[in-house]
Amino acid sequence: MSVIVQKFGGTSVASAELIKHVATTIKDVCNQGHQVVAVVSAMGGETDRLVGLAQQVDSHYSGRELDALLATGEQGSAALLAIALNKQGVAAISMTGWQIGMITDQSYNKARIQSIDASKIENHLAQAKVVVIAGFQGMDKHGSITTLGRGGSDTTAVAIAAQLKCTECRIYTDVDGIYTTDPRLEPKARRLKSITFEEMLEMASLGSKVLQIRAVELAGKYNVPLRVLSTFQAGRGTLISYEENSMEEMRISGVASNRDEAQLTVRGVPDKPGVAASILEPIANANIEIDMIVQNVGSRDGVADFTFTVHRRDYKVAMQILETTVTKLGAGRVIGTDDIVKVSLVGVGMRSHAGVASKMFGALARAGIDIRMISTSEIKISIVIKEQLMKKAVQVLHSAFDLDK
Amino acid sequence: MSVIVQKFGGTSVASAELIKHVATTIKDVCNQGHQVVAVVSAMGGETDRLVGLAQQVDSHYSGRELDALLATGEQGSAALLAIALNKQGVAAISMTGWQIGMITDQSYNKARIQSIDASKIENHLAQAKVVVIAGFQGMDKHGSITTLGRGGSDTTAVAIAAQLKCTECRIYTDVDGIYTTDPRLEPKARRLKSITFEEMLEMASLGSKVLQIRAVELAGKYNVPLRVLSTFQAGRGTLISYEENSMEEMRISGVASNRDEAQLTVRGVPDKPGVAASILEPIANANIEIDMIVQNVGSRDGVADFTFTVHRRDYKVAMQILETTVTKLGAGRVIGTDDIVKVSLVGVGMRSHAGVASKMFGALARAGIDIRMISTSEIKISIVIKEQLMKKAVQVLHSAFDLDK
Repeated sequence: MSVIVQKFGGTSVASAELIKHVATTIKDVCNQGHQVVAVVSAMGGETDRLVGLAQQVDSHYSGRELDALLATGEQGSAALLAIALNKQGVAAISMTGWQIGMITDQSYNKARIQSIDASKIENHLAQAKVVVIAGFQGMDKHGSITTLGRGGSDTTAVAIAAQLKCTECRIYTDVDGIYTTDPRLEPKARRLKSITFEEMLEMASLGSKVLQIRAVELAGKYNVPLRVLSTFQAGRGTLISYEENSMEEMRISGVASNRDEAQLTVRGVPDKPGVAASILEPIANANIEIDMIVQNVGSRDGVADFTFTVHRRDYKVAMQILETTVTKLGAGRVIGTDDIVKVSLVGVGMRSHAGVASKMFGALARAGIDIRMISTSEIKISIVIKEQLMKKAVQVLHSAFDLDK
Repeated sequence: MSVIVQKFGGTSVASAELIKHVATTIKDVCNQGHQVVAVVSAMGGETDRLVGLAQQVDSHYSGRELDALLATGEQGSAALLAIALNKQGVAAISMTGWQIGMITDQSYNKARIQSIDASKIENHLAQAKVVVIAGFQGMDKHGSITTLGRGGSDTTAVAIAAQLKCTECRIYTDVDGIYTTDPRLEPKARRLKSITFEEMLEMASLGSKVLQIRAVELAGKYNVPLRVLSTFQAGRGTLISYEENSMEEMRISGVASNRDEAQLTVRGVPDKPGVAASILEPIANANIEIDMIVQNVGSRDGVADFTFTVHRRDYKVAMQILETTVTKLGAGRVIGTDDIVKVSLVGVGMRSHAGVASKMFGALARAGIDIRMISTSEIKISIVIKEQLMKKAVQVLHSAFDLDK
């Protein structure tokens, strides 16, 4: 008998009525002959309510006690779902992070999973029970409660699926799958039947906020097939796995876009070893995450232009830091803008198919879209353009690569 | 250094502001040179909210999952109080029932404590921390979460105080101590500085709802001095211990009253062995608790009148059961009323001092109060009277025994 993990997010269990609906969804999967491990987030809004309470007590607190507080949200929804399942005649038992021996490190609020005691879950499965697990939480080696950070329930679900060698890990959300691009930007966007882990990672980091990137990484590492589907409508969703489509197809999966970007350039820095580090280190020390990095040969010999992007909220601080750096270096000048977006073409097909880049840039050129920055990986080509051009660029690329077909 | 347990109920931690106030109260005790173990209930209203959610999912559910759900309330308030203490510069750590090794039996929703691992608490006390413990909850031998039933946080506090051999267990409530009688019935009611465990048990079971009777029993068993005080106003409260007042004083502690009573009498039952059992067993089998029991010699030879009281809500069912019993016995007839109350005089003094009963009945007679039923224990005399006479009886007795002085 195959074991399937079903993970339900906060919006899926936001009320007693929805919890009953989720129980029906699980019952259906049981009736198809599977065993089920369900993983739940806190009821929608509950984590925010708890964080709000903590902030009323101490607006700056973070640490051990916050995790003890937040973990109650998932514990409660897991218990309620177990009650709902039992009510529907499906034997079920709820378990917390510590009850399944989910051991993490001691990084409160953002702990990493170290191990899970699969036998604790398997004992209940052997008694033909659905095991409902409180997501997002674990326990450190001293027995303190830890949490995995926002969205950690996805990670819990994948980790359990990996540990139990499950057939599939199903992530139920409020969308019915992964789309070729944002349907708000391109109404012709189409749901993908399948996508590879690498493509999903590129899509996720680029603003398709359906899945936690950490969970996708973990699923890829342990080869756990992930399926994204809707809690609220029937359908097969999108399967994320290592399987590619037909052998020879030039596979482009989608067009991702991200508004949360700002671009910073240091012009005319000395083109010698160590310059990149001296520019980026002060930024990293300020806990600012750097996204794209591009270094070009400069307009004069011996100097280079160095450009990178950061989250838009960090733009001003990053600019101040850069000004100081440039003063120290005694060379270059800083320019930047937060009026830009990133648009990316993602697909494993571009690995082996030449011509994707030229086709992409050709289509953009014909549409009169000016490209400010380009960065590529094996399965992704990203461009930075002016914000007002985003929708147009997405539509042009979606159409050029026949993603609507 | 002495260790003091401070227990705070739901109304004391009902908001972030109140939790901060409670932290100040704990800090004061620390500053007096004590170590503190704090035990908290869920935030006022939270347990009702959680029960309401469970009932929306399954209106009849009780069992394991309800405990997993309800235990989150205390876990949350404990974490918030630890945050508040840390904010005020008092090192503190929260702990759940399972984290302190509070092992109970498997009676979900009303579990009994079997053991506590004191070392888990003492390790943190040794690091000069205040240990904030989630009350009301434990864990059975299989690692499932259990709860001790409503008011179980009092029991948690006393059990921990017993295990750690604490100097005192302080129960903070919304009243400032135990009174000689209900101040709503007798404005001259006076707060007692001290009272014995036995007296408190009699007072508690008679309607002084300040303390859970189970917690008082446990405190008596392990000789843990209990102090009842107010969260909201300063004062020494009432100390409950084995200490009696001065040696020769005739100690009467208070007048308790209870409206929740109904009286049932079987007249003219055969006065032979086994009759009491045949009357009471069907009542007990219907899960109806019996309070007072009195059997009198009847008006004719060989027959007796048998009277008992039950909770008023059970009156009608008990009456129906009795009618059936009488038919089976082939003798007697049933009368009853739910228009009665119980008033009791409580005090260890009456053990050794004759004349308390006669003084009591004399005072009531002079006030024209008709007594329908009398029952006595070593430290209590209870009477049943018509409900409309309750206030008058309480005042007469309060005054006759100089309780206002």
